[in-house]
Amino acid sequence: MKLNIALLAGDGIGPEVINEAVKVSDAIAKKFGHEITWKPALTGAAAIDAVGEPYPDSTHEVCKNADAVLFGAIGHPKYDNDPSAPVRPEQGLLKMRKALGLFANVRPTFTFPSLLDKSPLKRERIEGTDLVFLRELTGGIYFGEKGRKDNGDTAYDNCVYTRAEVQRLAKKGFELAMTRSKKLCCVDKANVLETSRLWRETVQAMEKDYPEVEVSYEFVDAVAMRLVQWPNSYDVLITENLFGDILTDEASVISGSMGLMPSASMGAEVSLFEPIHGSYPQATGLNIANPMATILSAAMMFENFGLMEEGKAMRDAVNKALEAGVVTEDLANGGKAYGTKEVGDWLAANV
Amino acid sequence: MKLNIALLAGDGIGPEVINEAVKVSDAIAKKFGHEITWKPALTGAAAIDAVGEPYPDSTHEVCKNADAVLFGAIGHPKYDNDPSAPVRPEQGLLKMRKALGLFANVRPTFTFPSLLDKSPLKRERIEGTDLVFLRELTGGIYFGEKGRKDNGDTAYDNCVYTRAEVQRLAKKGFELAMTRSKKLCCVDKANVLETSRLWRETVQAMEKDYPEVEVSYEFVDAVAMRLVQWPNSYDVLITENLFGDILTDEASVISGSMGLMPSASMGAEVSLFEPIHGSYPQATGLNIANPMATILSAAMMFENFGLMEEGKAMRDAVNKALEAGVVTEDLANGGKAYGTKEVGDWLAANV
Ligand SMILES: CC(C)[C@H](C(=O)O)[C@@H](O)C(=O)O
Ligand SMILES: CC(C)[C@H](C(=O)O)[C@@H](O)C(=O)O
Repeated sequence: MKLNIALLAGDGIGPEVINEAVKVSDAIAKKFGHEITWKPALTGAAAIDAVGEPYPDSTHEVCKNADAVLFGAIGHPKYDNDPSAPVRPEQGLLKMRKALGLFANVRPTFTFPSLLDKSPLKRERIEGTDLVFLRELTGGIYFGEKGRKDNGDTAYDNCVYTRAEVQRLAKKGFELAMTRSKKLCCVDKANVLETSRLWRETVQAMEKDYPEVEVSYEFVDAVAMRLVQWPNSYDVLITENLFGDILTDEASVISGSMGLMPSASMGAEVSLFEPIHGSYPQATGLNIANPMATILSAAMMFENFGLMEEGKAMRDAVNKALEAGVVTEDLANGGKAYGTKEVGDWLAANV
Repeated sequence: MKLNIALLAGDGIGPEVINEAVKVSDAIAKKFGHEITWKPALTGAAAIDAVGEPYPDSTHEVCKNADAVLFGAIGHPKYDNDPSAPVRPEQGLLKMRKALGLFANVRPTFTFPSLLDKSPLKRERIEGTDLVFLRELTGGIYFGEKGRKDNGDTAYDNCVYTRAEVQRLAKKGFELAMTRSKKLCCVDKANVLETSRLWRETVQAMEKDYPEVEVSYEFVDAVAMRLVQWPNSYDVLITENLFGDILTDEASVISGSMGLMPSASMGAEVSLFEPIHGSYPQATGLNIANPMATILSAAMMFENFGLMEEGKAMRDAVNKALEAGVVTEDLANGGKAYGTKEVGDWLAANV
């Protein structure tokens, strides 16, 4: 296969983890006879510094014409905690999601037996956890009309959803559930919100098309609780943008392996793959960042092209590295810590 | 003191736990020379069944004219998971909050040394946790305009906040922080929402009036993570209605003592006190429900009248009961379980 991949390294440790993902992906391509052309483009604070915008048109062109986008991380302290700054890296993120139509954010949370002790939860609570959130990513209160009235003393944000938006996301959820344990949980706040009632009735109407899938409906506050109590009781969860933002982050820390969690944002034409961790500015350039989440994101990318063996080879290599203790500082548990590059080298040699 | 307390027992185990709170409150009143007149009124499914409405005008009259409201729990399976039912218990709750102007929901999460093992979190994560959420309760997306367009295919919910609403809530937060460790965290999503930016700028402007309080600003998704990782790093947190709904529920399970957590909803004229647990319909009438959270809610009520010794006597009695093992099934750990009534009797005799 010939693959054209847009490479958005971003800020902080982004470029370092992306480098290793490229290295391992190239090794896979070589092994399986594919040809990857990487197309680097600017994003985040790096893009603001260079051209004054976090998601410039030139970057959009590269992404739109690529077969997929591999993304590092964005965010820089100079833009932190200043939500009123005129240009901010997050705006680029939102613009990119909307412009590329990345409507379904796929966020798995799973455990590695060797890392269970890293979880803040007791072993018996977290053991066996393997869930996936599908978060709607281009609608809801993120993109509704927002503004001020009364000389700035009143602020508003409008949350809007259409039936078609819900169907598109829910369809992915049902399909994913069919490939797993056939359990789907629709997370909403239908006891209060009209948009949630639209979500619920739309998903209910789709149940008949997937008679094998057992669907449950839970309120977002209840899910926020159960994720901490019995995370292994969930399988596939679908939800709207803001609930998904909160719950996927909550879910990401329960496994204790946040530095290992990949994600995908699926669009109709192009999809984007990125680690869920941030840009950790304080670790920049120190060769200590864990590249595994980005490498597992690249594995999701291969699988999304239907290249299942390739993806599996990458995931197997990561498991082997974990078992062999070829890990960065964050997972070294006081033992020997490898550098970002050395972990990438080892994985490239072992896929 | 002469106290007039509206008594809204509600559904499920509500009446049972309320009974015990009345019993213990009466014992306190006797000991300290107060006179409590209890004014029972209908609410929840019980009120729907009786008069067709979850928060009838007659109940509102009772509450409005009371010095405080003591509330049990509402919710009944026949109304569950049917957000489209024409009349639902939650509507009564929202109507009551708005009509009584209960703008600040106070939700503490603390630990009992003897119950640390009940927490889903590892001991070192949860030990020492003692935080309080102030959730705004009468504004935001709960009460904004909501509806459908396009023949029902588009739904919307509007989130609105005014500067005055934020100030009112934040003032309570600063004041509470002054009585504790002087740390205040404002939880928002100011990188995306205009209402959050109003929250943040309003709180920032108030900082100068409380120079001793150290204020931090965190995004709601980050707080959802840190609550699981390091709950004991928080003290007082203020937030808007929907974020508060999700985060206070998340916080309630981390201590492992949900059956013990009280809450208060403060208004300008009258305030309401209630356990945070639900109506547990399956436990109704079995004399197994834990009345302690309701009793601790009554303790908050006394303290809110300035009767600090009275409140403390109730909390001390609960601690003594926990140490003596005078507890209901949920806390018995395989040991002897007392009934709801017996726990109430013991506490009434020991305050
Ligand atoms: C940076 C922010 C705008 C973004 C979001 O809220 O979607 C982030 O939290 C995420 O989840 O990707
Ligand atoms: C029942 C529901 C409307 C309510 C809310 O969302 O406020 C509940 O979850 C709560 O937190 O008291």
